[in-house]
Amino acid sequence: MAQAIAPANIAFIKYWGMRDADQILPYNGSISLNLDACLTTTSVVFDPTWDEDLVTLQFYQQEPQTAGGRARERVVAHLDRIRTIAGVTTRARVTSSNTFPADAGIASSAAAFAALTLATTAALKLDLDERELTRLTRRSGSGSAGRSIPTGYVEWYNGDDNGSFAESLAPPEHWDLADIVAVVDTSAKKIGSAENHLLAITSPYFKVRLEGIEQRLNATREAIARRDLTLLGETMETDAVSMHVVCMTQNPPSFYWSAGTMAVIQAVRAWRAEGLEAYFTIDAGPNVHVICAGSDRAELQRRLEALPEVSFTLANGPGAGARLVEAPG
Amino acid sequence: MAQAIAPANIAFIKYWGMRDADQILPYNGSISLNLDACLTTTSVVFDPTWDEDLVTLQFYQQEPQTAGGRARERVVAHLDRIRTIAGVTTRARVTSSNTFPADAGIASSAAAFAALTLATTAALKLDLDERELTRLTRRSGSGSAGRSIPTGYVEWYNGDDNGSFAESLAPPEHWDLADIVAVVDTSAKKIGSAENHLLAITSPYFKVRLEGIEQRLNATREAIARRDLTLLGETMETDAVSMHVVCMTQNPPSFYWSAGTMAVIQAVRAWRAEGLEAYFTIDAGPNVHVICAGSDRAELQRRLEALPEVSFTLANGPGAGARLVEAPG
Repeated sequence: MAQAIAPANIAFIKYWGMRDADQILPYNGSISLNLDACLTTTSVVFDPTWDEDLVTLQFYQQEPQTAGGRARERVVAHLDRIRTIAGVTTRARVTSSNTFPADAGIASSAAAFAALTLATTAALKLDLDERELTRLTRRSGSGSAGRSIPTGYVEWYNGDDNGSFAESLAPPEHWDLADIVAVVDTSAKKIGSAENHLLAITSPYFKVRLEGIEQRLNATREAIARRDLTLLGETMETDAVSMHVVCMTQNPPSFYWSAGTMAVIQAVRAWRAEGLEAYFTIDAGPNVHVICAGSDRAELQRRLEALPEVSFTLANGPGAGARLVEAPG
Repeated sequence: MAQAIAPANIAFIKYWGMRDADQILPYNGSISLNLDACLTTTSVVFDPTWDEDLVTLQFYQQEPQTAGGRARERVVAHLDRIRTIAGVTTRARVTSSNTFPADAGIASSAAAFAALTLATTAALKLDLDERELTRLTRRSGSGSAGRSIPTGYVEWYNGDDNGSFAESLAPPEHWDLADIVAVVDTSAKKIGSAENHLLAITSPYFKVRLEGIEQRLNATREAIARRDLTLLGETMETDAVSMHVVCMTQNPPSFYWSAGTMAVIQAVRAWRAEGLEAYFTIDAGPNVHVICAGSDRAELQRRLEALPEVSFTLANGPGAGARLVEAPG
């Protein structure tokens, strides 16, 4: 029995486009920040008397439910991957719960697969260092989950299977930033990221995105090292727009932005022009992450919640990585 | 004394980016349709007793007003250009009125400068053929105004000063399309196109836009020739998105889209998925032009007006080019 907590993360430089769907290798490196208020807690227990895996998911403010279909398959496939490494075939019970709503546009799979990987390897007493853990987590299919293992500000490197690991660039206390998620649409039809990771290369703009990646990774590392919000923010917005440009120009095109997305983008740009320094970034959905100095967090949360297009917000500071916690009972 | 009427036009393949700001030469050819309900009427009279030009503009549903500042300067500069050709220095009175609101996101300068060019050359009894008229109109500064001279479906070619003229690809009656302008924002701060025509080359995506232009021009000519709405629509959306990609990725970035823009884009895509064939295109502003078969015009107008983000709509069929009309009195 082992229990782990892992954070969701927000990417400043996005993982977009998969060059190897078996090993889950990206076309480019990415940099993210763990979120301190968006956590998944997962416990895993193995028992030789069970003859199948049981996966129980408890979404935010909902009753626990037994997972089936694609959700269960992904968990079982990852358990199998770890059982193979440990040389066991024992079945497991996996119980997982989130501190944040599933429809908030926060990639819950990153937190989920980071917590699952850490709890499962601990329950099986596998001795893996952090780098190996990030590589194993990446293989879950949620590649960016590997970024939820190390603490604080994290880079996931582009490389072959061995070289495609994540590591911390700075601990959470290095820089007091805030990420306020402006949830604009909880009803929008979901467009999964899996298919679009494979369609990215059909965009004539994808090569231009990749040509600019090294410069943006360098700028982002430098911005984090010297706590330069302007450099981080401008680089981050360029990268997010570039990712969505690829989606809008792939074949067939995919538009993640909604009316609310555009309302928040325009508001953030207008507030910034007036002197309140904040920057937007957007993952594979309509909701907008607004990044600012920790000292501006309350003001920005207030302004975002006042926009008619914003349903609610979720504010985060920099978070620790995945960690084991004492299991109950 | 001469009076001319000229239509606004909507570009299927956009003019975006100016490679010569003196001769008003574009980076690429463009194709548009004249709009039958968005017209400017301009009369020009020369009198040797006047010692300065008088420009009177009457906007839609407003009182006529004497133009000053930049608006007057642009008209006088174009009068000077035509006076030089005619070898005269006589001053003129220019009176112009529109059938459509100035804040509807329809490029009124195209209609205005096409009508001004035709009326002025007629008043000065200059003998110019249509091709020469389109070149002269282009030089006004509103390059796409040259596309409002020939009738119906029009292409403006990329070339040197001589080669950069416009001509009709098909008359209006060749294909019964409709353009419904969904006006989503009349209060938005205007971002002029002039500066962005010069900033286009700062976008790393501009070269990709240009690489795809010949293919899209060919597809659009073919779509018009065989009245293929699907080919026209898909090509047109790709081109419009590509233009806005350039704006969003130039330095500094420019975002013409508002919440309402995105609401209409998503609605049009959803209706199309359900079987109502319509396509969007967007000029340098937040409003959306929705192109469909003439037979779907009423239904689309009804649906667009039912969207909460749409203030009003303006529906157009294919229009004739600029023409002289009998002057009153």
